[in-house]
Amino acid sequence: MTKFSFNLQKIHNKARLGVINTAHGEIRTPAFMPVGTRGTVKAMLPQNVKATGADILLGNTYHLMLKPGAERIAALGGLHKFMNWQAPILTDSGGFQVMSLSHLRKISEEGVVFSSHIDGSKHMLTPERSIEIQHLLGSTITMAFDECTPFPATFEQAKLSQELTSRWAKRSRDAFKIRDGYGQFGIVQGGIYPILRKISADDLSKLDFEGYALGGLAVGEGQELMFKVLDYASDMLPVNKPRYLMGVGKPSDIIGAVARGIDMFDCVIPTRSGRNGQAFTRGGTINIRNSKYADDNSPLDETCECEACKNYSKAYLHHLVRVGEILGSMLMTWHNLAYYQDLMNRIRAYIAEGKDFDFEA
Amino acid sequence: MTKFSFNLQKIHNKARLGVINTAHGEIRTPAFMPVGTRGTVKAMLPQNVKATGADILLGNTYHLMLKPGAERIAALGGLHKFMNWQAPILTDSGGFQVMSLSHLRKISEEGVVFSSHIDGSKHMLTPERSIEIQHLLGSTITMAFDECTPFPATFEQAKLSQELTSRWAKRSRDAFKIRDGYGQFGIVQGGIYPILRKISADDLSKLDFEGYALGGLAVGEGQELMFKVLDYASDMLPVNKPRYLMGVGKPSDIIGAVARGIDMFDCVIPTRSGRNGQAFTRGGTINIRNSKYADDNSPLDETCECEACKNYSKAYLHHLVRVGEILGSMLMTWHNLAYYQDLMNRIRAYIAEGKDFDFEA
Repeated sequence: MTKFSFNLQKIHNKARLGVINTAHGEIRTPAFMPVGTRGTVKAMLPQNVKATGADILLGNTYHLMLKPGAERIAALGGLHKFMNWQAPILTDSGGFQVMSLSHLRKISEEGVVFSSHIDGSKHMLTPERSIEIQHLLGSTITMAFDECTPFPATFEQAKLSQELTSRWAKRSRDAFKIRDGYGQFGIVQGGIYPILRKISADDLSKLDFEGYALGGLAVGEGQELMFKVLDYASDMLPVNKPRYLMGVGKPSDIIGAVARGIDMFDCVIPTRSGRNGQAFTRGGTINIRNSKYADDNSPLDETCECEACKNYSKAYLHHLVRVGEILGSMLMTWHNLAYYQDLMNRIRAYIAEGKDFDFEA
Repeated sequence: MTKFSFNLQKIHNKARLGVINTAHGEIRTPAFMPVGTRGTVKAMLPQNVKATGADILLGNTYHLMLKPGAERIAALGGLHKFMNWQAPILTDSGGFQVMSLSHLRKISEEGVVFSSHIDGSKHMLTPERSIEIQHLLGSTITMAFDECTPFPATFEQAKLSQELTSRWAKRSRDAFKIRDGYGQFGIVQGGIYPILRKISADDLSKLDFEGYALGGLAVGEGQELMFKVLDYASDMLPVNKPRYLMGVGKPSDIIGAVARGIDMFDCVIPTRSGRNGQAFTRGGTINIRNSKYADDNSPLDETCECEACKNYSKAYLHHLVRVGEILGSMLMTWHNLAYYQDLMNRIRAYIAEGKDFDFEA
C-alpha cells in the first residue's frame, strides 16, 4: 500500500513545490481543491473536473452528514464511489459550517449541539463524531475538529478558542484510524495573535499530523491582514508536512499565500462565481451578463483550452447566463476551474524554475 | 453539395425506415429530435446529445427571435455555430408558441401581432417573417408558418384555421430560399375532421414541400383520438416525403405513431421529465425522488449505457435531485435522451427486420 507522504521537491524563497502521495493518487502542490459540498462539484461531471487538472476535491462533512447521511454513504461504498471520483478527497471537519450555517448551536467542552439548517433536526458534532463521519465517508485526508476563531476576536476570546481547538485536536488525533495512504491534518487557530498561533502550532506539531491547516483566516480580515498572519504563521508549521490555507481564495490570495509558504487551498469562488456569470481570465475578470458581450464572437480567453473557450463565444455564454440556462452554469464553472488549475500549473512551473511570480491573477 | 432527399428504405405494414440527407448530415428515421428551445438542450453539452444517438435537434423560432434575436444569431454565424451543433437543426415556425406563450396576440390574414412573454415588447410574425427568421438562424429544415388549430374546435373553426394555414403555407413556400441540402416542411391542419385533413394535405402537397408535418395534435385530445387521426391522416401525405408529428410524445405515443406511418418526432418530455426527477427505463418509469431509492445502489437501468447508468447509483441520483443539485438535472436528462434514442434504435431495427413492435415503452 502507498504510504501517505509529502515529497517536498523545491523551495524558492518561501514558495514550495511538492507532491503528496496518497492511497488515491498523487496531489501536486501547490494545489487548488475544487469544492464538492454535497457530493458534487456543482454543474460539473467529476471526470471533467479531473481533466481541468484537479488532483483532489474537498467534501463537506456538515452537509453530507445531514443529507444523505454518513452511514448511508458508507453503506453505499463510500464517498469516492458514491460521487464517482477516484482521486483523493479531503473532507473538512464540519466545525466551520456548524458555526456559519446551523441554528441554535451550543458549544461545550464535549462538542457542538446544533439544529440542521435544512429541517431543524438536532445533531451533535464532537471531535470523535467528526472523525468517525469522515472515516465513514472514506476521506483520503481527514481534518481535525476545531473551533474556527471568528474575526474580530479579542486576545482572550482567541486564546480560549485556540486552547479548545488544541484539546479537540488531541481527541481528533486519538479518534483517527491510521491506515496506509490516508492522512489527517490538524488545524492551527490563534486569530491574528502571533503568540497564540505559535502555541497552537506547537501543540499540534506534537500530535504529528500528516499535514497542517491554518484556520480562522479568510473570515473577513482582508488580504493585507491575512498575508501579515501568513508571514509568520506558516514558518511555525513543520517544514516537511503539507500546509493548507482553508477557504482561500481569489487568485491573488493564492499567489500571495504560496509566496508565503502555503501548499494547499480550497474555495467556492471559481464555482460560485461561474454560476453567477463571473469568469476569471488572464486579461482580468469578466462579468458575462454585461450587455457589451451580447455580440462578442470571441471566447472568454483566447489562451484557454477549456470546453467553454474552445467551442463557445462570449455572446453565447452571455445569452445562456442571461436567460438562466443550466448550460451557462456548466460552461462558466468549467472555465473558472480550468483557469484556477492553469494558475496552479503556472505557479508550480515558476517555483520549479526558481522564478518569482511576475503575473497578476 | 448534398441534395435534400429522403431515402425510404423499407415499409413494414405502415412503419417506415429511411434516411434524410441534408447539408448538415444524415437523419435516420424514425427519428426523435431533442428540443433545444433557447439554443441549448437544457443541462446538456451538444456533443453528449449527439453521442446519445440524436441526428437532429429542434430549435424554437419564437424563443430565439426574442432572445438573443435572429439577426444577432445570423451576425454571429448562425445557430449551428452559436450553439456548437454541426448536425441538422429543424426550427419550428413560431406559430405554436405565439399562441401558447405570448400575450395580447391578434391574428389577421397578414399574420400575428403579439407581446413578448418576457418583457411585453411588441412583435409581428407573418409567414414571410417566420421563414426569414428561420433562414437567419440557418435552419436545415424550416417549418411553414401555420395556425395551430386548438382542441376542441368546431368543424367551422377547424375549417377556417385550415384554410388560413393553407394560404400561409403558400406564402411560406414562396418566401423559402431554395438551397442544396436545406428543406422546408408544410404543416397539415384540420383538427379531428378527416375531410379537412384531406383538403389540407392536398393543398400542401401541391406546394411540393420537402416534408410534411401533422399539426394540431398532442394538444389535449389524448392518445386514442390522436391515433384515430393518424390512422387516416398519415395516408393522406405523400409517400416519398418525411412525415413529422409535432410535439409528440411519450414513448408509447411514438411507437403507436411510427406504426401509423410517422417518421419524425420532437418533444420536451425526456428533458423536462429528467429535470423533474422522472426517468424512463425498460422496466417502466422511475420517480427518483421517491424515498425508496435513497439506499438503492443499482443504476437506473442495467441495460443502459448512458453516463448516468454507467457511473452512478439511484441513491446518488436521488440525493442530487432531492437537494436540487444541477448534476442531478444533467444526469437524469442524459439518461432520458439516451433512453429515447435507444427506443428509436430498437424501432428502426424492428422495421429493418420486418418485426412488429412487441415492446412496451
